[in-house]
Amino acid sequence: MGQDDKVMPLIDMANIACGFHASDPDIMVRTVGLALQHDVMIGAHPSYHDIQGFGRRSIPHSATQIHALIWYQLGALAAICQAHGTQLSYVKPHGALNNDMMRHSEILEAVMDAVVQYQPGLPLMLPVTRDYKAHQALALSRELPLLMEAFADRAYDDRGRLVPRSVAGAVLSDPKAVIAQALNFAQLGGVNSINGEWLELPADSLCVHGDNEAALEAVKGIRQALSA
Amino acid sequence: MGQDDKVMPLIDMANIACGFHASDPDIMVRTVGLALQHDVMIGAHPSYHDIQGFGRRSIPHSATQIHALIWYQLGALAAICQAHGTQLSYVKPHGALNNDMMRHSEILEAVMDAVVQYQPGLPLMLPVTRDYKAHQALALSRELPLLMEAFADRAYDDRGRLVPRSVAGAVLSDPKAVIAQALNFAQLGGVNSINGEWLELPADSLCVHGDNEAALEAVKGIRQALSA
Amino acid sequence: MGQDDKVMPLIDMANIACGFHASDPDIMVRTVGLALQHDVMIGAHPSYHDIQGFGRRSIPHSATQIHALIWYQLGALAAICQAHGTQLSYVKPHGALNNDMMRHSEILEAVMDAVVQYQPGLPLMLPVTRDYKAHQALALSRELPLLMEAFADRAYDDRGRLVPRSVAGAVLSDPKAVIAQALNFAQLGGVNSINGEWLELPADSLCVHGDNEAALEAVKGIRQALSA
Amino acid sequence: MGQDDKVMPLIDMANIACGFHASDPDIMVRTVGLALQHDVMIGAHPSYHDIQGFGRRSIPHSATQIHALIWYQLGALAAICQAHGTQLSYVKPHGALNNDMMRHSEILEAVMDAVVQYQPGLPLMLPVTRDYKAHQALALSRELPLLMEAFADRAYDDRGRLVPRSVAGAVLSDPKAVIAQALNFAQLGGVNSINGEWLELPADSLCVHGDNEAALEAVKGIRQALSA
Repeated sequence: MGQDDKVMPLIDMANIACGFHASDPDIMVRTVGLALQHDVMIGAHPSYHDIQGFGRRSIPHSATQIHALIWYQLGALAAICQAHGTQLSYVKPHGALNNDMMRHSEILEAVMDAVVQYQPGLPLMLPVTRDYKAHQALALSRELPLLMEAFADRAYDDRGRLVPRSVAGAVLSDPKAVIAQALNFAQLGGVNSINGEWLELPADSLCVHGDNEAALEAVKGIRQALSA
Repeated sequence: MGQDDKVMPLIDMANIACGFHASDPDIMVRTVGLALQHDVMIGAHPSYHDIQGFGRRSIPHSATQIHALIWYQLGALAAICQAHGTQLSYVKPHGALNNDMMRHSEILEAVMDAVVQYQPGLPLMLPVTRDYKAHQALALSRELPLLMEAFADRAYDDRGRLVPRSVAGAVLSDPKAVIAQALNFAQLGGVNSINGEWLELPADSLCVHGDNEAALEAVKGIRQALSA
Repeated sequence: MGQDDKVMPLIDMANIACGFHASDPDIMVRTVGLALQHDVMIGAHPSYHDIQGFGRRSIPHSATQIHALIWYQLGALAAICQAHGTQLSYVKPHGALNNDMMRHSEILEAVMDAVVQYQPGLPLMLPVTRDYKAHQALALSRELPLLMEAFADRAYDDRGRLVPRSVAGAVLSDPKAVIAQALNFAQLGGVNSINGEWLELPADSLCVHGDNEAALEAVKGIRQALSA
Repeated sequence: MGQDDKVMPLIDMANIACGFHASDPDIMVRTVGLALQHDVMIGAHPSYHDIQGFGRRSIPHSATQIHALIWYQLGALAAICQAHGTQLSYVKPHGALNNDMMRHSEILEAVMDAVVQYQPGLPLMLPVTRDYKAHQALALSRELPLLMEAFADRAYDDRGRLVPRSVAGAVLSDPKAVIAQALNFAQLGGVNSINGEWLELPADSLCVHGDNEAALEAVKGIRQALSA
């Protein structure tokens, strides 16, 4: 909950952990209350069950297990929303589950099926990559709305994937660089790769990782620039 | 899951654990599927978070924590129901949470508030005791439907409470005794206490604990007797 | 791990959580390494199994369950010590387990038995209260060494118990007041109660709660004053 | 604990789960007591932290994380042994951790290092395969004793690996077949593969999976045959 009080007034959408990699019922209630207070859309942030690894370690799951995992976590958060007179706005898988679904189409399809079977019309949020048209086709065949997410504070490689955090330059730490990348996504529908190649990546949502003070400054700058 | 396959065809209502004292998302999906197959009503069975103690140990909770605990678990199971095209029919707290709410009215009121705030109209199942009118009044003031539950296989003391399991005679092990007590509840609206005093205890639901072969035989006998 | 890097150079004894109310194997390894580096004695800090409640909620346990709970956690930390060529110096129960043992002698005796049966000679750390002689007698009969702990940053009532945190003045926030109370314990073997009554409380160890910057300042001040 | 009461009198070595894929402190205490009563050697059975998946799902771990994982679990069980006046006789990783270490030498080396650093002289139990000499070399360089384990009730392929359970014939269900394979290992130092090829596999320990009645009968038969 470190910076939640500071970040919530600045954002439009909050990804809320559902107890499998972080959080617990008490914290979820407080976070939903905070989101409501600031009129922030609530996204469920389900993950593999791995508190120790913060959901960042891949754990093999069958499609049936992925369905169960997602339903359980979506429902837990949805109930807290419902008791507060609000609802989930979207689903965004966390950590290794997110990575795995972007690499293995059978996992992506299991995630998609879980969301659609739970609640038709509820959007799934995906990182936008060069494969976005294939992802849109998979979603369209299920009548699943997609939200494409771009990262304002992470560098992209020439294939439109995030540069791994272990590589120098992977994380943009200068708020000005973050703001510039955000404007590119918002106004030009893409971004330059870390090697300077232009990537066409149409995004519905911009993400800044909320774990340092620089992020706060960047988010304020992005809001000012976009409203200008 | 031991006897679930055998018990499910014989019952009308199944209390399904939600992962806090037993079960996990995979098992919940299988159990909901089994209930659907046999047209059994699904009740959420939330509890304190205590796998090791099977939810039978009391853990202090504020009213706010009880709300969070119940919403989380109800929602997790409700989502699995929703993905299968069905829904929760009622809520029945498990173990120490159930005991605590029957002893402390502030806990009972926290449970009632949690259920009503989550979904108006969803019934709460309570053990029927001599205090049932007070419980009905608390529920009525919240427009919360109640289901009163009687135990066919447990002896009652003169105050209408279950005789603790540690006392001889607390558990009826002879299927015929279980059937007789079930018929008393169903046809006469009450039961004789362990000391032979008549107790007026109007029940909406009869419970037999599903953890031994005798239970199976008793349930079959009760169904035959009631349909006769 | 927030302030561990800053606090470790200043203390002589570190209570290390064992995964039941906080921490996990990875964090325990890092913390043991840090303690070793600063030549700090390692105390096991076992608790009830309650991550969500940070071990601060009482959970009923039989004596046998308390033994199991303590052995498991002591052993887990002791193994990490052993792999690093060091060992446990003492045991200090955390949170509700600590409170419960100070209120119920059967729980205190179960804790004492667990420590002695695990390793004769390993000290148990207890808060020093007006009942310290009774506690010493219980320990002596088991040949269990005790360490009596006093709190430099918490007010005591006239019966020698900590004033509950909910009462105004319960926590000493002025570093000077903390230093003064520490000197009283160290030099005079007691402290004034919140009402100004002198309490004879002979302590082997002084605790300052390490969760704010004031604590750091106080600890530095205590060290200077005691070495002066 | 299903058949523990029945199995314990028949075996020499018991692999005891340490709470990360099954069991809890209470159950561990009961199991250690039962092992002591029947004079059975106690092996720690550490695993990835995955209750839901019974430790059978691979979870990525760094070498440092494997050390922490193993120390924690070994220590927890060792403390329960120590409190009962006994000790661990060996370590045998469970499930996916066992599979992963047999496939990836850096994981095997991390496991070996963890055991040696915890307690020099404590043996590690490994499945015996055609690679057993390479495994012995790795162990020898660390002065780590190895116990080579063979499976009496599982078929081997021509490369000396277990035939996967999904293949017909992978599990020997006829007690006579199990007894015959046990005698081959014990008397001839090897076994015929599922295709009839002779495999030289020197084993120190014979394992029969204790989860069915046939296993009990087989174990009795093996004991009679070997003592004859």
